[in-house]
Amino acid sequence: MIRALVWGENVHEHSNAAVAKIYPDGMHATIAAALRDDAGIEADTATLQEPEHGLPEARLKNTDVLLWWGHKAHGDVADAVVERVQNRVWGGMGLIVLHSAHFSKLFKRLMGTPCSLKWREAGERERIWVVDRSHPIAQGIGDAIEIPHTEMYGEPFTVPEPMQTLFITWYEGGEVFRSGMTWQRGAGRIFYFAPGHETYPIYHQPEIRQILRNAVRWAHNPAPAWHGIAEAPNVPVGNAPEGLTQKGERLHADGEAGYR
Amino acid sequence: MIRALVWGENVHEHSNAAVAKIYPDGMHATIAAALRDDAGIEADTATLQEPEHGLPEARLKNTDVLLWWGHKAHGDVADAVVERVQNRVWGGMGLIVLHSAHFSKLFKRLMGTPCSLKWREAGERERIWVVDRSHPIAQGIGDAIEIPHTEMYGEPFTVPEPMQTLFITWYEGGEVFRSGMTWQRGAGRIFYFAPGHETYPIYHQPEIRQILRNAVRWAHNPAPAWHGIAEAPNVPVGNAPEGLTQKGERLHADGEAGYR
Amino acid sequence: MIRALVWGENVHEHSNAAVAKIYPDGMHATIAAALRDDAGIEADTATLQEPEHGLPEARLKNTDVLLWWGHKAHGDVADAVVERVQNRVWGGMGLIVLHSAHFSKLFKRLMGTPCSLKWREAGERERIWVVDRSHPIAQGIGDAIEIPHTEMYGEPFTVPEPMQTLFITWYEGGEVFRSGMTWQRGAGRIFYFAPGHETYPIYHQPEIRQILRNAVRWAHNPAPAWHGIAEAPNVPVGNAPEGLTQKGERLHADGEAGYR
Amino acid sequence: MIRALVWGENVHEHSNAAVAKIYPDGMHATIAAALRDDAGIEADTATLQEPEHGLPEARLKNTDVLLWWGHKAHGDVADAVVERVQNRVWGGMGLIVLHSAHFSKLFKRLMGTPCSLKWREAGERERIWVVDRSHPIAQGIGDAIEIPHTEMYGEPFTVPEPMQTLFITWYEGGEVFRSGMTWQRGAGRIFYFAPGHETYPIYHQPEIRQILRNAVRWAHNPAPAWHGIAEAPNVPVGNAPEGLTQKGERLHADGEAGYR
Repeated sequence: MIRALVWGENVHEHSNAAVAKIYPDGMHATIAAALRDDAGIEADTATLQEPEHGLPEARLKNTDVLLWWGHKAHGDVADAVVERVQNRVWGGMGLIVLHSAHFSKLFKRLMGTPCSLKWREAGERERIWVVDRSHPIAQGIGDAIEIPHTEMYGEPFTVPEPMQTLFITWYEGGEVFRSGMTWQRGAGRIFYFAPGHETYPIYHQPEIRQILRNAVRWAHNPAPAWHGIAEAPNVPVGNAPEGLTQKGERLHADGEAGYR
Repeated sequence: MIRALVWGENVHEHSNAAVAKIYPDGMHATIAAALRDDAGIEADTATLQEPEHGLPEARLKNTDVLLWWGHKAHGDVADAVVERVQNRVWGGMGLIVLHSAHFSKLFKRLMGTPCSLKWREAGERERIWVVDRSHPIAQGIGDAIEIPHTEMYGEPFTVPEPMQTLFITWYEGGEVFRSGMTWQRGAGRIFYFAPGHETYPIYHQPEIRQILRNAVRWAHNPAPAWHGIAEAPNVPVGNAPEGLTQKGERLHADGEAGYR
Repeated sequence: MIRALVWGENVHEHSNAAVAKIYPDGMHATIAAALRDDAGIEADTATLQEPEHGLPEARLKNTDVLLWWGHKAHGDVADAVVERVQNRVWGGMGLIVLHSAHFSKLFKRLMGTPCSLKWREAGERERIWVVDRSHPIAQGIGDAIEIPHTEMYGEPFTVPEPMQTLFITWYEGGEVFRSGMTWQRGAGRIFYFAPGHETYPIYHQPEIRQILRNAVRWAHNPAPAWHGIAEAPNVPVGNAPEGLTQKGERLHADGEAGYR
Repeated sequence: MIRALVWGENVHEHSNAAVAKIYPDGMHATIAAALRDDAGIEADTATLQEPEHGLPEARLKNTDVLLWWGHKAHGDVADAVVERVQNRVWGGMGLIVLHSAHFSKLFKRLMGTPCSLKWREAGERERIWVVDRSHPIAQGIGDAIEIPHTEMYGEPFTVPEPMQTLFITWYEGGEVFRSGMTWQRGAGRIFYFAPGHETYPIYHQPEIRQILRNAVRWAHNPAPAWHGIAEAPNVPVGNAPEGLTQKGERLHADGEAGYR
């Protein structure tokens, strides 16, 4: 059983009538329901408004894959929580970054780039082309997915070269976008998926829901958590794999920790 | 003329007699001198102790390639300066990260990973193998470089998969390390180069100095600075490349900025 | 059940007494037995000497992952069989390339590079360091594997930059080697694994056998075979996703095939 | 001075009136003229019809960057010439693969994949978006290039993940394509550039010509040719960097060549 956790900013659902109508229980609830259609996934939710944004250490420890949707309130996410989540990704938790979360603190920290793009909210048509139909995330989808009303996200999308480009979007208004890409950071697998503007019922669309389920399965790393991945252990001279004797000058006394 | 700037932490040179003897004017001065052996490079220095660590906005603007050596005082580098340098790298400034700067705030932010490794200060022998002899950074070097006394840095080195692995090191004590790798972040080219422990005269070694010069030339991006790379510009409906009319619901009024 | 097929050149086992003693039933038999220790893998064998080298179309179609060991007789493998196997890899069959098969026609065709390296047959010690312990292929292995007697394979190993570098080897004689790397070609996942010189009992070593089993599971792509991946289908004007009318000059009449 | 050589198939220019009208001296001549607008490039041409297709060993040796345009006659290119060119790319010659040459023997050999795509010859509009404006190949170009009449090349384009995706195309008919990508094979830098269907005057368009010049400069590797890159040299025990004594069984006598 893969333990997924859907994090929702949960703001526009309460302040914008159009959004509230499409997602009466919040976007996170709709996304979690999509995941539960896979009997091998158990999906829970967390929101910005909960203590520690619903992401205390213990909960992250018991999460295999985190999905992140945020837009208006990126700045309200506490740095300490961002750092905690980033550490858990490094340790092996999968991460699925959705739509406007391209500008979340979390994604920008994991990418090390601006993660900027162009945008237009015109309700235009989007066609997502599948670049690699053999990838686990693209299973059960045809050659392309059409979304009748979408927000345009256009290149340049300033992210590092991905492990793989899986989807590229064509927009009615004339732009293109690498709408599905993967990376790895530490032991954690990351998938960015562009569709999901809150004023359109995109997370109710069957192919999008299928991709979310596929992505959770792909991002799940069953390896034991990589504890201590951020540590820099000293290997004492006496423990070198090959016999060694200390030579030359040194900064550190035996057993001393390194600098950080 | 490529404008290089060598940033040195400049701490151990004043607190450790062995380091002071090898680098009486500071490691940054020795590195800058190595760069000046290339008539096409002008090299200046900056240190932690200067106001704004010697890295005010105007100076970064006039820097093509920054070299960064830090070890004991990573935590003393102001976050605002780190952010400023990261932005300049995104805009196109090359960055050469040296030795213990693997744990600098700057490198960790640009990589999005822990950047951890194993280490041992035993003065052992290191042999750096050239993986791609055709790369600009490897020119004028033979098949391998021997460093008689070095600090061991061992795998796993928790960085993202590089654009290219250029050098891999063999250590007398039995470990290996990807000692030269490249990445790109925004418009900025990044090279990490492992050798350079302060208690050994590594930056006086001719092949190492050659690699530093080569790296400055490689990291120099002559393209105009990518201003606004971190911005997310709105494309109004009327400016869409293909004729569009507004459809469906929307969050943003015309001309409104996006959320960050 | 994953259907693995171990292809062995099966030459030295019959011509060299040392090899025959270590692998009395052939190296392919030993490797297949290692795979069968995983109850989810069924493993069969094929050899150079069989008709079509034991790799007729129908058998490849029913193979999920192919393992390839060859050395002395690369030139004896028929080009038609190489092409057939390459096509099946593109369609989704996993491929594990072992030791001296770095110079097989198959691997060179899939990489598009010379796949050359340095070598020395001195029976020296090898230590394989795990670069990414979170990868499926590295599960159940510690930080490193020691092989007491091995053939040295040294950098530069002229392959394309991999999807991931998983293992790097340290040799007693002073060289290093990227001894485990992954790539994808079409729908097929490829893993190269360096150990396996025939005069040493390397495929009897438990950690090596574990890696082979892990690699079979990783290389298995459960997606439907990508039939027609090498075709270039025409999309008639009338079938364009967006309404189009024919404009300008053209080379091809309606329904005509493209050039190859 | 960079020595560029433009190879043209030179068939349609003589058999199709529309093509002959646009390219009266052959497409190769038009492309070479575009390159000569850069005073640092000298450009020559070669065609399929010449002896050895105009690509004898000596000429390749004196070529820094080769541009390849082919379409109808891929099968007429002699395998021996393809192999020769591939070897020269490995040794360091840059290669620019144009339009329908995606299906050339040469490109398929260097990629190791089918290099297939979808296509439609409808004279529709194409907009090439620049993904990385800081790349040398994208200099002097704005955010996008419009080609009024083009052949559609659609995803999936079955090539290996590139070093970088530089351009992505939007088509009027609804498809997308990664129209500019880079790879490295051995010491050779490779750029694929999609535009260039022979029935439209695409190589007369200023921005396209600028990209070709930029690409020649980028693909030029000034490093000495990597002779012997396809060889696998033996390192005798006595020449090991670290002192070694022969141990265990061996296949090869001293000084014996390895198997290929």
